Amino acid sequence: MRDGDAYLKEHRDEHLSQLMDLLRIPSISALSEHKPDMRRTAEWLAAEMRRIGLTRVEIMETGGNPVVYAERADNPGGPTALIYGHYDVQPVDPLDLWVTPPFEPEIRDGKLYARGASDDKGQVFMHLKVIEAMLAEEGRLPVNLKLLIEGEEEVGSENLERFIAEHRDLLKADVVVISDTALYARGVPSLTYALRGLAALEVHVTGAKGDLHSGAFGGAAPNAAQALVRLLATLHRPDGGIAVAGFYEQVRPLSQEERDAFSALGFSEEALMADLGVSALPGEPGFTALERLWARPTLEINGIFGGFQGEGTKTVIPARAGAKITCRLVPDQDPERVLDAIEAHLKANCPPGVKLEIRRMGGAPAAMTPIDHPAIRAAMQALSEAYGAEARFIRTGGSIPVVGTFGRVLGTPCVLMGFGLEEENFHAPNEHFHLENFDTGMRALYRFWHHLAETMK
Amino acid sequence: MRDGDAYLKEHRDEHLSQLMDLLRIPSISALSEHKPDMRRTAEWLAAEMRRIGLTRVEIMETGGNPVVYAERADNPGGPTALIYGHYDVQPVDPLDLWVTPPFEPEIRDGKLYARGASDDKGQVFMHLKVIEAMLAEEGRLPVNLKLLIEGEEEVGSENLERFIAEHRDLLKADVVVISDTALYARGVPSLTYALRGLAALEVHVTGAKGDLHSGAFGGAAPNAAQALVRLLATLHRPDGGIAVAGFYEQVRPLSQEERDAFSALGFSEEALMADLGVSALPGEPGFTALERLWARPTLEINGIFGGFQGEGTKTVIPARAGAKITCRLVPDQDPERVLDAIEAHLKANCPPGVKLEIRRMGGAPAAMTPIDHPAIRAAMQALSEAYGAEARFIRTGGSIPVVGTFGRVLGTPCVLMGFGLEEENFHAPNEHFHLENFDTGMRALYRFWHHLAETMK
Repeated sequence: MRDGDAYLKEHRDEHLSQLMDLLRIPSISALSEHKPDMRRTAEWLAAEMRRIGLTRVEIMETGGNPVVYAERADNPGGPTALIYGHYDVQPVDPLDLWVTPPFEPEIRDGKLYARGASDDKGQVFMHLKVIEAMLAEEGRLPVNLKLLIEGEEEVGSENLERFIAEHRDLLKADVVVISDTALYARGVPSLTYALRGLAALEVHVTGAKGDLHSGAFGGAAPNAAQALVRLLATLHRPDGGIAVAGFYEQVRPLSQEERDAFSALGFSEEALMADLGVSALPGEPGFTALERLWARPTLEINGIFGGFQGEGTKTVIPARAGAKITCRLVPDQDPERVLDAIEAHLKANCPPGVKLEIRRMGGAPAAMTPIDHPAIRAAMQALSEAYGAEARFIRTGGSIPVVGTFGRVLGTPCVLMGFGLEEENFHAPNEHFHLENFDTGMRALYRFWHHLAETMK
Repeated sequence: MRDGDAYLKEHRDEHLSQLMDLLRIPSISALSEHKPDMRRTAEWLAAEMRRIGLTRVEIMETGGNPVVYAERADNPGGPTALIYGHYDVQPVDPLDLWVTPPFEPEIRDGKLYARGASDDKGQVFMHLKVIEAMLAEEGRLPVNLKLLIEGEEEVGSENLERFIAEHRDLLKADVVVISDTALYARGVPSLTYALRGLAALEVHVTGAKGDLHSGAFGGAAPNAAQALVRLLATLHRPDGGIAVAGFYEQVRPLSQEERDAFSALGFSEEALMADLGVSALPGEPGFTALERLWARPTLEINGIFGGFQGEGTKTVIPARAGAKITCRLVPDQDPERVLDAIEAHLKANCPPGVKLEIRRMGGAPAAMTPIDHPAIRAAMQALSEAYGAEARFIRTGGSIPVVGTFGRVLGTPCVLMGFGLEEENFHAPNEHFHLENFDTGMRALYRFWHHLAETMK
């Protein structure tokens, strides 16, 4: 079996230069002013897909940002894999914390710094280069491949489910392969078998008709910021658990086998504290930090705002205040039931004198994949070979809503072969990608497609 | 005795046009980008003071924004009054709530809309026009006048105390007259005998070194916004009182006489709720709304901020969050002791895993003036005559820190002859000034200076 190692090594500089071009496009899906950049990124990918030899390359409309589709079927009757990824990225603020600008990629100390370097443009790009390498070395692909790269993952993939449902035949595959997760640690090949889900909402509190002078009205007028603070403080118990009635009701308990497996990884809470620069790891009592990160649900305030935020002092009583909240969910929590529970809690605890508005922002359930699937076996083998160490099964605390969608709509299981590292600041300033995993990851993917042709034939 | 009524009526249009010029300068002291506007406003005032016949007009440096000084002594050996006011204004956000832009004055329905129309450029301007009228009508002033107009009232008058201390002789006077308060209600002439004080601070909470992905770290990493919410929620009791130990310790209790006097004003809590558009007037239990507004201290969150505030959803764990807080104080609370108590409370209640930074932003004690002072008698008489109704003694919930400073540094009592109305949106969008009080207020001031020459001779 060919391994592509020589080709990938020989073309490494050229590939990195191409990736940096891709990363320069500020494809932030959360901000509407970047609409044109979303299409520019889709066009860049489509052109590259055509160039490396994929067929039926198409930018397809979704109602939101377009998806990029491509395929190549060299094996009539053979197994077909659908590669899913996303070309959109997270917002970049606070901008002042970036060492180099988020959309001016730079390699420092073996790491490529840019928004999207790891999550997920860099990993989408790896798939393209592995396909390029296989076609250059072998003239054909060992399995039939379809690619579906979307532009709304970071804003909840709102249009994707309908797109998938409307293109069932086009997207029909035996397995979905996604590279958008992290290795357990540097040098530890690992495959993620479970993801957390997500539920999102916004809370808006309104007091008086307008902002008020605190001298004239302080002591009698409702203060929206104070009411919001009082309301949000009721969401957690003092011990760190979530105080919303019914929130934990559908949570599948961790098995002793899973707790043992997690424990065997030797996760260091001290190292995490040092990494984050904090003196404690607050959270739900009764669980280790790793258990909380991988297998327990959360409720986080992602942003809070209200009143005067400028320089200096302003003696104002804010009329409006709000917060953005997301929950990470675990099997078998239903996002809608979780949002129902939070909404009921907020309504029941709203302080007097203010109006409460809750905006539900959608969600997605958690997902787990059977670990005895032939595609999973192929992936574990490829990872072990490329990294020269035995691959491990892990979970992740993140969410890829489409994993659930693929299972629900297409009935297709997902293999999560991700090559990021948790410390790579996805969603935060100074996102980066360790190039060792760019290189070894592509060697693993090259091997994976060949093993898959064997295990699924 | 001349009354200036004819002169003021004849020159009304010209005066309003001049005032609109003054209001067009965006003299926001809280925002450093407006530094040049502060000086421009001071220069406008100085030029106008020279034009109307004041002497020794001077823009004097303070270390911050300059003060404008002027005087005229037509009565050797006679009483001298110091007129204090401020030419700086509050910030204007949220800008989208203004019907017309804050620095494009417009008269609608007998009201002049602009930032500073009422607080305090409009009322400073009234004094200049009354002086102009007296000199035009009589060729001289009935009492000796000094004017001190500062540019940092809205940011705590930080440089004024030192300026006053360093210019004791220049500013020596028998009484200080300030027009920066409100009438009790439309058509009710009233004189404010007590002001609340102020204490200000900022609270900043820091979690991890940077913002984190809530999928990767949610459940273990400290969330600065959540810690802030939890901390701030401890500042008030569920019943609306302030939970900070020692906060109420130095509060002078309301006398039964005061409670009866307040009660006799017929203040309507229902009308206030309707004005503000709220369904309750939350606050400290055991007191009427008017008592809470005038004679009880408060602790208000003026602004709160942290994490993602943009459009859409961002699954981030905020590393930093903060809040701006001010307290309205009453006699005999010491601002430093109040800030000590709040600081101790915040430190004792800070959740685990985050760092707390408290920035003390200064303060000023509350103030009360003896109601039997001859200048107060002169003012009550002038108000009753100009408005054609018996003047009332009232308090106000606002703060004018310099009132305390004048008492402490110069030993001079203050007379608070203000002509605003509480509903005029000082510090909020759509600030305005009822022109009926611009007109009648100047007629009252014209009479006041003549009565003062009598009562203090």
